[in-house]
Amino acid sequence: MKTVLVKELFRNSDSHTNKSIKVSGWIRTSRVSKTFGFIELNDGSFFKNVQIVFDESLDNFKEISKLPISSAIVVEGKLEETPNSKQPFEIKAENISIEALSSSEYPLQKKRHSLEFLRSIAHLRPRSNTFSAVFRVRSLVAYAIHKFFQERGFVYTHTPIITGSDCEGAGQMFRVTTLDMKNIPLNNDKDIDFSRDFFGKETNLTVSGQLEAEAYALAFRNVYTFGPTFRAENSNTARHASEFWMIEPEIAFADLSDNMELAEDMLKYIIQYVLDNAPEEMEFFNNFIDNTLLDRLHNILNSEFAKVSYTEAVQMLIDSNENFEYPVEWGCDLQTEHERYLTEKIFKKPVFVTNYPKDIKAFYMRLNDDNKTVAAMDLLVPGVGEIIGGSQREERLDILEKRMEEMNLNKDDYWWYLELRKYGGVKHAGYGLGFERAIMYITGISNIRDVIPFPRTPKSAEF
Amino acid sequence: MKTVLVKELFRNSDSHTNKSIKVSGWIRTSRVSKTFGFIELNDGSFFKNVQIVFDESLDNFKEISKLPISSAIVVEGKLEETPNSKQPFEIKAENISIEALSSSEYPLQKKRHSLEFLRSIAHLRPRSNTFSAVFRVRSLVAYAIHKFFQERGFVYTHTPIITGSDCEGAGQMFRVTTLDMKNIPLNNDKDIDFSRDFFGKETNLTVSGQLEAEAYALAFRNVYTFGPTFRAENSNTARHASEFWMIEPEIAFADLSDNMELAEDMLKYIIQYVLDNAPEEMEFFNNFIDNTLLDRLHNILNSEFAKVSYTEAVQMLIDSNENFEYPVEWGCDLQTEHERYLTEKIFKKPVFVTNYPKDIKAFYMRLNDDNKTVAAMDLLVPGVGEIIGGSQREERLDILEKRMEEMNLNKDDYWWYLELRKYGGVKHAGYGLGFERAIMYITGISNIRDVIPFPRTPKSAEF
Repeated sequence: MKTVLVKELFRNSDSHTNKSIKVSGWIRTSRVSKTFGFIELNDGSFFKNVQIVFDESLDNFKEISKLPISSAIVVEGKLEETPNSKQPFEIKAENISIEALSSSEYPLQKKRHSLEFLRSIAHLRPRSNTFSAVFRVRSLVAYAIHKFFQERGFVYTHTPIITGSDCEGAGQMFRVTTLDMKNIPLNNDKDIDFSRDFFGKETNLTVSGQLEAEAYALAFRNVYTFGPTFRAENSNTARHASEFWMIEPEIAFADLSDNMELAEDMLKYIIQYVLDNAPEEMEFFNNFIDNTLLDRLHNILNSEFAKVSYTEAVQMLIDSNENFEYPVEWGCDLQTEHERYLTEKIFKKPVFVTNYPKDIKAFYMRLNDDNKTVAAMDLLVPGVGEIIGGSQREERLDILEKRMEEMNLNKDDYWWYLELRKYGGVKHAGYGLGFERAIMYITGISNIRDVIPFPRTPKSAEF
Repeated sequence: MKTVLVKELFRNSDSHTNKSIKVSGWIRTSRVSKTFGFIELNDGSFFKNVQIVFDESLDNFKEISKLPISSAIVVEGKLEETPNSKQPFEIKAENISIEALSSSEYPLQKKRHSLEFLRSIAHLRPRSNTFSAVFRVRSLVAYAIHKFFQERGFVYTHTPIITGSDCEGAGQMFRVTTLDMKNIPLNNDKDIDFSRDFFGKETNLTVSGQLEAEAYALAFRNVYTFGPTFRAENSNTARHASEFWMIEPEIAFADLSDNMELAEDMLKYIIQYVLDNAPEEMEFFNNFIDNTLLDRLHNILNSEFAKVSYTEAVQMLIDSNENFEYPVEWGCDLQTEHERYLTEKIFKKPVFVTNYPKDIKAFYMRLNDDNKTVAAMDLLVPGVGEIIGGSQREERLDILEKRMEEMNLNKDDYWWYLELRKYGGVKHAGYGLGFERAIMYITGISNIRDVIPFPRTPKSAEF
């Protein structure tokens, strides 16, 4: 008999009712009396368990009754509807065989565990309800992102992980080396002789694939990256990880307004995809993690995102007379408290803030005609603050070079990036979405360590 | 007027014929006489160019006539069918505006360039026909892989890039550090004091996500990874890169035979997807890169893959009396020449070789009852040799520990991996597909540097 997946039972129970079927999975819980018992079986294919009913008619009734949690069994039996129960059906076992025993030391017993404890058993935590839901949703969001861009003809571009220079200056970087660290070679100037390192030069882990994505957008028009990025910053917060995944679309023949339209469409698409494809998980999050979650996500789907310039936004914050921890004035970087006030109190929906002062933004952002602001955009959402940051890129070679000089960047390091402006460098734009931030937003999970299978943070690289 | 993408014109030309349309793109070539001219325009959305016809009726005819290659223009005009020409239609320009000039120094002039030269301009090479085709196909193959696994309910699992230990021993690793390399801290034993490094321990770049994927397969049943992996080996060959992407599915309640079925289904699925979705690119490869390509791929689609044990395969190679550079005997690792002889000469189709001697395979592969071989599988394909390597995993704790002892592995480093065998560690299996090897196979491109946007190889980490 072929094994049926539990997901198939839940999605198409009618076609299996009153038929003999075979399932296999792990025991999540069991309740046993002298003559019969119930097992909640999870086979990995689905968030929910299927209930197995068994009784003394089994040869190995006693053995099955005593199986520790997380033991794996194969069950043959009949699927029966249970119209008066919480679960829609159960399997009356005719035969149960043991596939793999578990030990009674299994740490995920039925009682509630703290998220902190579960982090210490990251190899087992996906077997708990919370993490089963989180990591299934993570997979679906990743796929939704690919599906969204591929359906629109975007080319998925793998930008390099190991980079030869600290190009963007977006953050502190991890050194990548094969030099013998107990015996570092020095050159005549007593500097480290990187010509003897693996790549013949200094190399680090990437902080962003944007610059390389720009090169590809100027060939394929619409591209996106989706890969790991790294920050060697000693930030021990619930929102920072040293290794995280990022999505960076880049579009040519496009300006800031096209960029905002794309970001809004993308965010709505992935939320809709998860609501459609993981209803059980989303209900679980809404019940047990954050009971404003579904309202918040439906609000996003049904809103037209607001747009406001940085200058207007600053004035609104000043006019609010709200007592912020960090005072607001034109030229300052917006803090999370300001961002949340804008999106939660003033607009009550997602809002794009545009045209930030050039002095607080990166060199590659397009200078506006006022000479004071750049064509940047941040998308702020209720409950979180900034979730997407992007800009139209400076396509004018002379202005780009001038900005780089002002910011003391070495133009030689960027020779190929500058060349893109010489050979048909049309207007183009793009943004970055931190993948884990998006998962936190969509699940309501508040610590980034709980949305990455094996998180890397300062002083922690276990598993 | 809304801009139409060239892909849309080619896919649905009927609905645009004799209508006024707008396109934008980069000039790939132009031929101009005194009174009229032709431009081959590529807009990035499609492998093929659309032909623009323009004449003196344009105000700026002279200016347009002189535009250097790779200049970007916006064209308004009428789409006209050209039944007697090579191209199915052309656009009669009514208005052409210049979006971005190119310089006459543009290095991708019409003449043929060597692949080596094009590598030196990796920021521009996606604008050439060959690389436009390669990187569009690369994107489609990546998507086909996600689509295949997601349609089957597999959970996409992001395993860590930075790892705390050289767990698998699959190859030399890159050190990841933030220590000041000119001032390395030493402990009392005069060893490097990694407790003062970023993660408080030695860290490297991953060589495989398999061990972590096993943990997730024992929760979600069917999972896959798709991420970058690294090898710090000084191999300057056409088939080795220091940074490459790998796909590693892992399936629970599954044995070697399920594993082979999955690999065969996957490979056929992605080939079919690319043939369906990139017919122009595949025809180009077949015409200009490898004229056996389409035959080879169709042969794969139409074959049932062969299966042979290592022991049988070795006997076949001995019996062939072929004069191999490396002699064959039981116990030896198969070389590419042996692999290709098996798949090209003996089986004439893809073949799985199974049950290799345990001494030439990794510690985690399941020991067969003969105590001499392990449940490994390599998939060999004509023209390449090995493209997939996998195994059933050792799920029996006592045998796994014994194997680790034999191979002098430190069991403490693997505490969590061993624990997976204690808590319902059912039979499970998986394999690895090198993504770039797959792209080489599907495109006929023979150097791995030409299927990665910005390749990293010994002494080379440009861009």
